Amino acid sequence: MNSKFDGWPNVVESQQFAAAWLDQEFFPLASEMVDVYKSGGNDLLRGMRMVSLFFEPSTRTRMSFETAMHMLGGRVVFATENASQFSSAVKGETLTDTIEVANEYYPHVIVLRHHDDDSAEQAVKASVRASVINAGSGRKQHPTQALLDLFTIRQKFPEIKGIKVAICGDLANGRTVRSLSYLLGKYEGVRIYFVAPTRLAIKQDIKDYLVRHNVCFEEVDDIHAVAEKVNVIYQTRTQKERGGSMEFGVNGHFRIDQSVLDLMRQDAIIMHPMPIDRHNLATTEIDPIVDNDPRAVYKRLQIGAGLATRMAILKMILAPEA
Amino acid sequence: MNSKFDGWPNVVESQQFAAAWLDQEFFPLASEMVDVYKSGGNDLLRGMRMVSLFFEPSTRTRMSFETAMHMLGGRVVFATENASQFSSAVKGETLTDTIEVANEYYPHVIVLRHHDDDSAEQAVKASVRASVINAGSGRKQHPTQALLDLFTIRQKFPEIKGIKVAICGDLANGRTVRSLSYLLGKYEGVRIYFVAPTRLAIKQDIKDYLVRHNVCFEEVDDIHAVAEKVNVIYQTRTQKERGGSMEFGVNGHFRIDQSVLDLMRQDAIIMHPMPIDRHNLATTEIDPIVDNDPRAVYKRLQIGAGLATRMAILKMILAPEA
Amino acid sequence: MNSKFDGWPNVVESQQFAAAWLDQEFFPLASEMVDVYKSGGNDLLRGMRMVSLFFEPSTRTRMSFETAMHMLGGRVVFATENASQFSSAVKGETLTDTIEVANEYYPHVIVLRHHDDDSAEQAVKASVRASVINAGSGRKQHPTQALLDLFTIRQKFPEIKGIKVAICGDLANGRTVRSLSYLLGKYEGVRIYFVAPTRLAIKQDIKDYLVRHNVCFEEVDDIHAVAEKVNVIYQTRTQKERGGSMEFGVNGHFRIDQSVLDLMRQDAIIMHPMPIDRHNLATTEIDPIVDNDPRAVYKRLQIGAGLATRMAILKMILAPEA
Repeated sequence: MNSKFDGWPNVVESQQFAAAWLDQEFFPLASEMVDVYKSGGNDLLRGMRMVSLFFEPSTRTRMSFETAMHMLGGRVVFATENASQFSSAVKGETLTDTIEVANEYYPHVIVLRHHDDDSAEQAVKASVRASVINAGSGRKQHPTQALLDLFTIRQKFPEIKGIKVAICGDLANGRTVRSLSYLLGKYEGVRIYFVAPTRLAIKQDIKDYLVRHNVCFEEVDDIHAVAEKVNVIYQTRTQKERGGSMEFGVNGHFRIDQSVLDLMRQDAIIMHPMPIDRHNLATTEIDPIVDNDPRAVYKRLQIGAGLATRMAILKMILAPEA
Repeated sequence: MNSKFDGWPNVVESQQFAAAWLDQEFFPLASEMVDVYKSGGNDLLRGMRMVSLFFEPSTRTRMSFETAMHMLGGRVVFATENASQFSSAVKGETLTDTIEVANEYYPHVIVLRHHDDDSAEQAVKASVRASVINAGSGRKQHPTQALLDLFTIRQKFPEIKGIKVAICGDLANGRTVRSLSYLLGKYEGVRIYFVAPTRLAIKQDIKDYLVRHNVCFEEVDDIHAVAEKVNVIYQTRTQKERGGSMEFGVNGHFRIDQSVLDLMRQDAIIMHPMPIDRHNLATTEIDPIVDNDPRAVYKRLQIGAGLATRMAILKMILAPEA
Repeated sequence: MNSKFDGWPNVVESQQFAAAWLDQEFFPLASEMVDVYKSGGNDLLRGMRMVSLFFEPSTRTRMSFETAMHMLGGRVVFATENASQFSSAVKGETLTDTIEVANEYYPHVIVLRHHDDDSAEQAVKASVRASVINAGSGRKQHPTQALLDLFTIRQKFPEIKGIKVAICGDLANGRTVRSLSYLLGKYEGVRIYFVAPTRLAIKQDIKDYLVRHNVCFEEVDDIHAVAEKVNVIYQTRTQKERGGSMEFGVNGHFRIDQSVLDLMRQDAIIMHPMPIDRHNLATTEIDPIVDNDPRAVYKRLQIGAGLATRMAILKMILAPEA
């Protein structure tokens, strides 16, 4: 356990990060990384090797991790975009065996997305040599998403302390929501509004955690009820691939549209972990009109925060002294 | 709009290129690039990043673009080989959102193949930072294929002006044919023979375009009727994946075999955008015997032209002054 | 034909390698490569390009070849992880055409895994420019697996000569077994025990080959009958994807478990080409308890031998004089 990085050199769950570490180490480094990528990258991780193992589809997370590695001059020596279907997993190999074997190829870091809730813990246990970064584990965690979410908020507000956040949508199935709640819970004075229909409400274990950490939260069933109170609306998508089903119909209680914009503060922001489901515009969770509102940060600031976050994490793990 | 590159820095459709630009800028640069790749590449695009987004299967096009980037010393920071199935597209993300988001990772160029006819236009509109290269858009366009086709012809003939080309096969569904016709239409004295069964004939909009640009063309239903007149036979495959069905039976009107070779001029060439469908040799569009004829350029010269073309395009977009 | 490498610069089948070459050239170079990868790689293959064409799923083999190329400073300019499904193969292209075309992109080496037994021979014939490495061809061969298997044994024993090996499992469908048998057959005094149920017995052509080369072998139907005699137990998985079905039930004749460990010599080793099928622990071919026995080398030494072997092969082909 490296005290400097609060549980590093692996990223397993968002609880492992302390507020002081976020404020004093992570946010400043992530800010530096924004400058680094905007000015074309560097060679800090020259000679370092990443293996990118995705057992579930992803574009954004995989793209940001692999780009982050390239931006810092490292190599992605192996990438698989759907390991569940095209790999030794089909032949019955356990995740433990896959990770043990991958270690013998001497990568410095393994980025793992996997459908099992406990995949990250299993992988860390099996990894004798490489650092493991959880890029999404089943319904359970997506800690680097939580870090980038907080870094996004931090870029817009002077501090996380005291922030009011409405987290809206399919709260039962989204790992993003879970990881974000844990991380917000590290800060004093934070107030969370969980906005969801009863059957997709936030799970009891998260509520227990928040209670244990004296975080104020409230459950409501209409985003309009809290839109004018909050600094951040964090909207989410129906997690169809994890069995979720959420109604975001026009004029609905959970949809972000003009009626919500009208209520929101001028300095508030709207976030979303992306992608937005726009198969059907009548049921999308964010009306496209919202995209052009200056308070919508999900397509720009929040994405850039994702790249900076992954660069910062890689730097901390692979070149802590540089 | 950069006048120098006639519509660059994006490649959307073959109409954007003028004959003068092709003759004075593109062909000379592509010829240089042949020398560059044969001598092992260079470092012109060091520090440049490509994202390769393929929503439809492809080997050749993707391989030539990614190899081109590596040949010039650049990096492919992210590649997906079947984004329709393994990505945020499954989760309902629009192409616009995908491209906007990809831009925040600061790639210099996005190479896009997509099943929608208007995907390239949409992508250019959404791309605030990266150049977009259309690597095939639905049934509509495949402009870099047309460029490489013309470069192939140019390497074999002193000029494109006055060339006679028979374009044969499933002309209703192939985007290659469409892009090539538009580009040939830029040159004086070109004569095109469209050789197809009535139900798979070339579409009216292309004929209108050619008429508007004073390009002579003729529709015929047997390749033997024109084989001795032309400089180029451009054969195509049934576009099964786009609903085409074409009969190329032995002794048929549309198959390239010994009977067609016997009619052709000695200095004529046979082209094909590849791959050739050889599931069944009795119905393949090119009898394998033709492969060994010196006039067949589809497996060598035309492929090399593809690599040189993609290198030239990348150089023009990413290092115009180098 | 480069006499120095006994049939190089292509790797087609394990018969192409002579025992003297293995002992005097390959093993020493592979040992050097272990040091190279443990110390972070080098730049020996800078400017060299690999194309990685996998028509069948693989994690381990693809990861080790691509990592090997990166470890030596080369570039993987194109990789496809399931070419059968996502490529020109779907459109009816022959392997010969795919390889001919790939050559025009000037890769230095093509690593090929393909479902056809004769794919490697076909590819070598079609490849006018690039070296071809067979990374698994149908039911027939997997020569680099055989090389790494022998290198593993060599790291544990002073010589291959006189070694006693029990090869166990689905011997009818595994190409690994075939390639390994051919290679072991190059050495004097080797004794092989084929341990399989009658219906999955080793094929006649291998037995003929071994007889021709005066290799002693025996067929038995219970691993317990030979466990105390051998230096190596080489266990294999049911080749479901090639129609195999093998019973490895608890207390069965073909399963490696405590009862087999109890019989084995203290200096013997247990190998497996990986992955181990652990869908069902009651029917897995190796009881997980075996993993922790110091004689089990399949997850560590044998994997590292795979990386070193691929590095050595690439070095021999691409930089023979370096």
